Amino acid sequence: MSEKKYVYFFGGGKAEGSTSMKELLGGKGANLAEMSNIGIPVPPGFTISTEVCTTYYENNKKYPAELEKQVLSALKKVEDMMGKKFGDVKNPLLFSVRSGARVSMPGMMDTVLNLGLNDETVKGLIAKSGNERFAYDSYRRFVHMYADVVMECRPESEDEVDPFEVIIDEKKKARGVKNDTELTASDLKELVHEYKQMVKDRFNKTFPDEPMQQLWGAIGAVFGSWNGARAITYRKLNHIPHHWGTAVNVQAMVFGNMGDDSATGVAFTRDPATGERRFYGEWLKNAQGEDVVAGIRTPQPVNAAGKTSNAEISLEEEMPAIYKELESIYHNLEKHYRDMQDIEFTIENNKLWMLQTRVGKRTATAAIRIAVEMVDEGLIDKKTAISRVQPEQLDQLLHPMFDPKAEKQILAKGLPASPGAASGKVVFTAEEAVAKKELGEKVILVRLETSPEDIGGMDAAQGILTARGGMTSHAAVVARGMGKCCVAGCSALEIDYAARKFTVDSTDVKSGDWISLDGSTGELMLGQVKTIQPKLSGNFATLMGWADEIRKLGVRTNADTPKDSKVARDFGAEGIGLTRTEHMFFEGDRIDAVREMILAENVEGRKSALAKLLPMQKGDFLGIFQAMEGLPVTIRLLDPPLHEFLPHTEEEIKDLAKTMNVPVGRVKAKISSLHEFNPMLGHRGCRLGIIYPEITEMQATAILEAACELKAKGIKVLPEIMVPLIGTAKELIDQKAVIDAAAKKVFAEKGIAVDYLVGTMIEIPRAALTADKIAEVAEFFSFGTNDLTQMTFGYSRDDAGVFLPQYVERGILPTDPFQVLDQEGVGQLVEMGTKRGRSAKANLKVGICGEHGGEPNSVKFCHKVGMNYVSCSPYRVPIARLAAAHAVLEESK
Amino acid sequence: MSEKKYVYFFGGGKAEGSTSMKELLGGKGANLAEMSNIGIPVPPGFTISTEVCTTYYENNKKYPAELEKQVLSALKKVEDMMGKKFGDVKNPLLFSVRSGARVSMPGMMDTVLNLGLNDETVKGLIAKSGNERFAYDSYRRFVHMYADVVMECRPESEDEVDPFEVIIDEKKKARGVKNDTELTASDLKELVHEYKQMVKDRFNKTFPDEPMQQLWGAIGAVFGSWNGARAITYRKLNHIPHHWGTAVNVQAMVFGNMGDDSATGVAFTRDPATGERRFYGEWLKNAQGEDVVAGIRTPQPVNAAGKTSNAEISLEEEMPAIYKELESIYHNLEKHYRDMQDIEFTIENNKLWMLQTRVGKRTATAAIRIAVEMVDEGLIDKKTAISRVQPEQLDQLLHPMFDPKAEKQILAKGLPASPGAASGKVVFTAEEAVAKKELGEKVILVRLETSPEDIGGMDAAQGILTARGGMTSHAAVVARGMGKCCVAGCSALEIDYAARKFTVDSTDVKSGDWISLDGSTGELMLGQVKTIQPKLSGNFATLMGWADEIRKLGVRTNADTPKDSKVARDFGAEGIGLTRTEHMFFEGDRIDAVREMILAENVEGRKSALAKLLPMQKGDFLGIFQAMEGLPVTIRLLDPPLHEFLPHTEEEIKDLAKTMNVPVGRVKAKISSLHEFNPMLGHRGCRLGIIYPEITEMQATAILEAACELKAKGIKVLPEIMVPLIGTAKELIDQKAVIDAAAKKVFAEKGIAVDYLVGTMIEIPRAALTADKIAEVAEFFSFGTNDLTQMTFGYSRDDAGVFLPQYVERGILPTDPFQVLDQEGVGQLVEMGTKRGRSAKANLKVGICGEHGGEPNSVKFCHKVGMNYVSCSPYRVPIARLAAAHAVLEESK
Repeated sequence: MSEKKYVYFFGGGKAEGSTSMKELLGGKGANLAEMSNIGIPVPPGFTISTEVCTTYYENNKKYPAELEKQVLSALKKVEDMMGKKFGDVKNPLLFSVRSGARVSMPGMMDTVLNLGLNDETVKGLIAKSGNERFAYDSYRRFVHMYADVVMECRPESEDEVDPFEVIIDEKKKARGVKNDTELTASDLKELVHEYKQMVKDRFNKTFPDEPMQQLWGAIGAVFGSWNGARAITYRKLNHIPHHWGTAVNVQAMVFGNMGDDSATGVAFTRDPATGERRFYGEWLKNAQGEDVVAGIRTPQPVNAAGKTSNAEISLEEEMPAIYKELESIYHNLEKHYRDMQDIEFTIENNKLWMLQTRVGKRTATAAIRIAVEMVDEGLIDKKTAISRVQPEQLDQLLHPMFDPKAEKQILAKGLPASPGAASGKVVFTAEEAVAKKELGEKVILVRLETSPEDIGGMDAAQGILTARGGMTSHAAVVARGMGKCCVAGCSALEIDYAARKFTVDSTDVKSGDWISLDGSTGELMLGQVKTIQPKLSGNFATLMGWADEIRKLGVRTNADTPKDSKVARDFGAEGIGLTRTEHMFFEGDRIDAVREMILAENVEGRKSALAKLLPMQKGDFLGIFQAMEGLPVTIRLLDPPLHEFLPHTEEEIKDLAKTMNVPVGRVKAKISSLHEFNPMLGHRGCRLGIIYPEITEMQATAILEAACELKAKGIKVLPEIMVPLIGTAKELIDQKAVIDAAAKKVFAEKGIAVDYLVGTMIEIPRAALTADKIAEVAEFFSFGTNDLTQMTFGYSRDDAGVFLPQYVERGILPTDPFQVLDQEGVGQLVEMGTKRGRSAKANLKVGICGEHGGEPNSVKFCHKVGMNYVSCSPYRVPIARLAAAHAVLEESK
Repeated sequence: MSEKKYVYFFGGGKAEGSTSMKELLGGKGANLAEMSNIGIPVPPGFTISTEVCTTYYENNKKYPAELEKQVLSALKKVEDMMGKKFGDVKNPLLFSVRSGARVSMPGMMDTVLNLGLNDETVKGLIAKSGNERFAYDSYRRFVHMYADVVMECRPESEDEVDPFEVIIDEKKKARGVKNDTELTASDLKELVHEYKQMVKDRFNKTFPDEPMQQLWGAIGAVFGSWNGARAITYRKLNHIPHHWGTAVNVQAMVFGNMGDDSATGVAFTRDPATGERRFYGEWLKNAQGEDVVAGIRTPQPVNAAGKTSNAEISLEEEMPAIYKELESIYHNLEKHYRDMQDIEFTIENNKLWMLQTRVGKRTATAAIRIAVEMVDEGLIDKKTAISRVQPEQLDQLLHPMFDPKAEKQILAKGLPASPGAASGKVVFTAEEAVAKKELGEKVILVRLETSPEDIGGMDAAQGILTARGGMTSHAAVVARGMGKCCVAGCSALEIDYAARKFTVDSTDVKSGDWISLDGSTGELMLGQVKTIQPKLSGNFATLMGWADEIRKLGVRTNADTPKDSKVARDFGAEGIGLTRTEHMFFEGDRIDAVREMILAENVEGRKSALAKLLPMQKGDFLGIFQAMEGLPVTIRLLDPPLHEFLPHTEEEIKDLAKTMNVPVGRVKAKISSLHEFNPMLGHRGCRLGIIYPEITEMQATAILEAACELKAKGIKVLPEIMVPLIGTAKELIDQKAVIDAAAKKVFAEKGIAVDYLVGTMIEIPRAALTADKIAEVAEFFSFGTNDLTQMTFGYSRDDAGVFLPQYVERGILPTDPFQVLDQEGVGQLVEMGTKRGRSAKANLKVGICGEHGGEPNSVKFCHKVGMNYVSCSPYRVPIARLAAAHAVLEESK
């Protein structure tokens, strides 16, 4: 049996791997191999496969026996190719060690550069480069990074200052200089030893000098970081399975900090914010890659087109030949990968090396534009274009933006790092952001710069504002991924964490003050700025049109008002899947009539109160029917328990008694008689209409009178009357009889008849179980997956907050089942209900109107079980349309 | 095509029907046919089939076209056989018209006797009988009965006096006589006309004189009464389908009131109260059947053995030849039907006629004795014996009886009409009984005599006491059917409905006073008399032994204390299926430790409070394990939400704060933070143990320490630890890990290990749906059908009272799903859960521990789905054992 292969070599125009081996080599490793294969100049190296990571964790953190030999053999190849030797004191080979999982996890995995340096090899580096300062700069960077990442020599809390920063700051102060670059070679040499001493003194650890020991330490750190708390959090947020593991890429170092003919940069082949087709990136002369990403020095644009001021110097102008080569490479990469690429490059003594290429993250706007334009360019087909835009991404496009006419008090301007509009109260820590969000407050997270520890807080915030860092800084990349508004590198900000405030010129903004961010302009504004509905681009319409061409699932909306109906129709809703009539009960002085009905002593009293409500309800329906002319409108009859309409405080009770002209005692007695231990499982839904048929009668009458009156005016109305909370077929028989009788009466009185359907919510487990019997009566089903989830899990949505977050945190549940439909459990009932319903009535119309109707994974599930439509809130209609198209694409795979 | 047959003739030693045609002819009709067939002297007649009733209601109360012709043809046959003509003025044939459904519904259906009499035909009756008084007595009875039953000439409320009674009472007063029998022929003739006049004056109706009109009116009244409120109530109480319909029996009249050589009687072939093998019945000389049943005159025993005083005159002594013939008939009937018979007979001028035979209702004691003795006699086999005793019947045997040593203040003695012991507050109307019961009060219904209108009140009462009527009176028959204690014919009682009191001698007993009844001795006692556990007879043990031989389902009990465990074990429980540990949390001062745990600020605080609870819980388990030595004991971990353990009133909160030495504010804050909108769906069950693993740990430790300590003493303990409210496999994985860790620790500390199982409740729909995954972890399943019903229906048991009764009333649900398992819906989940669980673990032990575990229909369902056991409250254990045996018998059918 041949030995299992764990290590894959790449470099010199060929590689043992390829882009198709992403699962084994990780995204970065597969791309390095692929780039080698297609002739891109990539420093040689090798990838330790993700299988090693998996095996490592499965075997109590032990490597497979074959690994060491394979690593040494690949290392030898690199040495041969580079003509250097690892650990050689004369001509030392240095390595970068990076993680690389299947999908990019920015900032999550730790990287070590310049590995292989010690007091001996540094001399070889000096000799070979003839640049002592560069060599010691590399050495001190290496010690810092290795001690931090591999040896975990870090301050325990965020309040403490980074001890390495303390040492370098002291050194700069002692030398009377401002920038790191002004430190001399001997300063840097001193730093190396001061660093090592500090590691020993403060952390009681000895820094390893032996290069091979350094290498295995770094490999171990990469695998270790896979199960670090930060990585786990990121995976949870992004639904990445823990068992995938990461690969390790060990690659020969090339140096962007070898003098002024050296540089480093990152770039996108198209603008990741707008999608514009232009080469877009940043570079720094005489620097190493992490200087760009970490945002410590503000980088320069790669080309003249990217310049925002004359002070900036572009690579295009500075190194025109190199820039031309880079351009040609990025064209090749886009052609090869047929997608926008995010690349890292280094120039070492005027020689260009590509360090990485990967599919670039982008905003929703950019994703749409790139997808549509690439179809125009003939790079991809329409289906690919659709699949390139994630439904959930659209969310950021569909939410309000600042009203251009609103008065804005612009305080400062930063980089427009991630588009969108956000207002919130200032917080300065991720923890505070999370805590405030849980209290229902909107916050903006303000940081000097963000780090992976901040991800939870960024997720909780409405927007992110940083004082440092560029468009590719951590904050910018992560915010774009989250579809969250971000203004980065707003250098006018002076942040005082201790005083919990920031200052711009003489203006103080304290923790808790309101600010607004415009992620598309980079503007920071004081206070809350008015927002309006964004206009959707032509590209958006084009892409949605393509999605509509292939999707099979209808998309309706949940809307209770003519206004919402209009918004949803503009977003492409093909009807209303849920109108909640009880929302109308609270409006204006209607609540008085509702309360009169509840307090009535008998049927006559209830009927007389209901008679007052009838014209109001009819008015609602007239408006909604008109807004949805020609499209079906599903109206759900009264659902909540009656006590929800009664007042709670002593004061309100007294007022009500006065208004109704009844004794306070009677109001109290009624409230007490209607009290329920578990209102969720109480006297609500069709149970109300069964005990008080006059309520159903009034609502059906209002719906059908409105429909008749509009039909008489030539307006096409398609009412669908939906009975909630059905658990047995007989309940529906009972309520359908009441509705049909009301219809007969209305049609006779109005002298005109309209077609209407009577159907039911399937939201009680028993309804799904007996769907065949219910379908004999029902003309349509609509799955109410909110309640169905509550009852199938036995979770009260109002109370589950005590344990649900922990359940998700601890992996007991993969996601919150109220956000993402639980296909394993609740989904069974949805599928069963659909099948059984159709078994009794083959053409039964089946939809969903729970929150899940706008959640992409759930929409795909609805497609899979063969529903006719999903219904969701207006702003999620485009998301559902796109998700429905994705469902078709995924099915055909 | 031949004409559909609707009318079936019987008489003269042959019949068109037979006993196997019960569904078509009803019980009474089938038996009349059968009796004819086997040569029993039955007055000829015909039966109109139940199909006519069904057709009648399906076709808007119209009879099938063929009916009239078939009735006339059968009537002609009867005329020929009796040598009389219906409506003939010289030799008139009279009919009785009775209902007859598939199963006997005593008192529910209306009967009309002497039909065919009018001012002309009565002369023929006088001529033929030579007895003018008899003829007019028949006539006035007929008019009274017909006007009441067919024409509905009745007072509207119970408070009003029966107008017919008013007329006859006035007549008696006018004539200065005391008994009806003392009225003369001309008195009776006057009564007939006064009755008819009253019908006209008061009810504005004309009494029909035409015999054929009378006949169709009576037939219509029988069918009408099928859908009368009383019949519907009875069917609901007894789960009889409404679509069965009733047959109508039209039979030639024979007369027990034709003088002193005539009589009428009812009898049982064995004692219906005790089951003793003796001919047991009552008769009245010169009377018609309803005189016996209605309890207006106190009847005499049929034989000398039945006499309780010398004043009584038995049929055996009075008419020895007839009695001998009757004895021979009853022997034949028992041999033929192989069951105890309830017969009606009439002696007309020394000629014996059998009017009816049917399977006799009996007490549970009698049912058992008869079943066992009939096996001894070779009449039936063991399986038949088992099937003769209804599981639900056993209930009456298993409840406490009066302590023989208790002091009793015996006030009076009546007939021991239905055995059992009952104490309650005196009520005088059925409505009051129902109302008081709903308030949770125990009542005894005291009536002069009961009527079908009283059924609801009888059901609500602990026991029934009547002043009039015999062992076969309405009260006695219905009470025995209900298994309810009844003392009948307690003639010492003077009831004053208006004053709401009764008097015995000089003792007044007022409404609301406590009395006690002994249905086995007929004693009426003042106050509440102490009860004890009854000793079960040898016959009971024999029958239960037979049941155990054939049942496949195990029977366990739900018990929380050693005492309950002991009772259940004595009743045959084969283990404990459910011990609720939270019940123990409330006992004594434990609640303090529980509250301390809840109020703790952190894990350490909780652990220290739990440490106080540990020895107490262990003590409980020691007791239960000992009581159940050698049998499995399933212990459920803490289930209710924690707020259930906290106080509610201001006073209690202050006390708690003081006891705990914490500020009142903190207690209130805790109560408020634990408040839940829907506690049923809140933070309870395993969700507690997952968030607070220390609770699970303490409980597992207490269970296993107790088990180890007993094992060390040589006592065999089989603990089964049950985790409640599991919805996903991962929850169980989590809790099992905590339990297993606790076990490891306990076993190490005690130096001894015990076998234990870890399993789960299946009480959440999702658990049933994902049972295959849960079974990979669980070692047993126990269906918690209480919660499963709540969640599958979306009904809160605490709140559903507002609509559930109406649901059952209106037929939306067949029964209360909390009493009888909903096989159509919830049952699907039970079946699915069992199958899927076993698909993952073939030998998975599956049981049920909801209330349904002791309900016979539900037990049969559990057998059908292949459960290993049911678990129910101790007193229902024998019921479950018998039901499990019935399940096997029904399956083999």
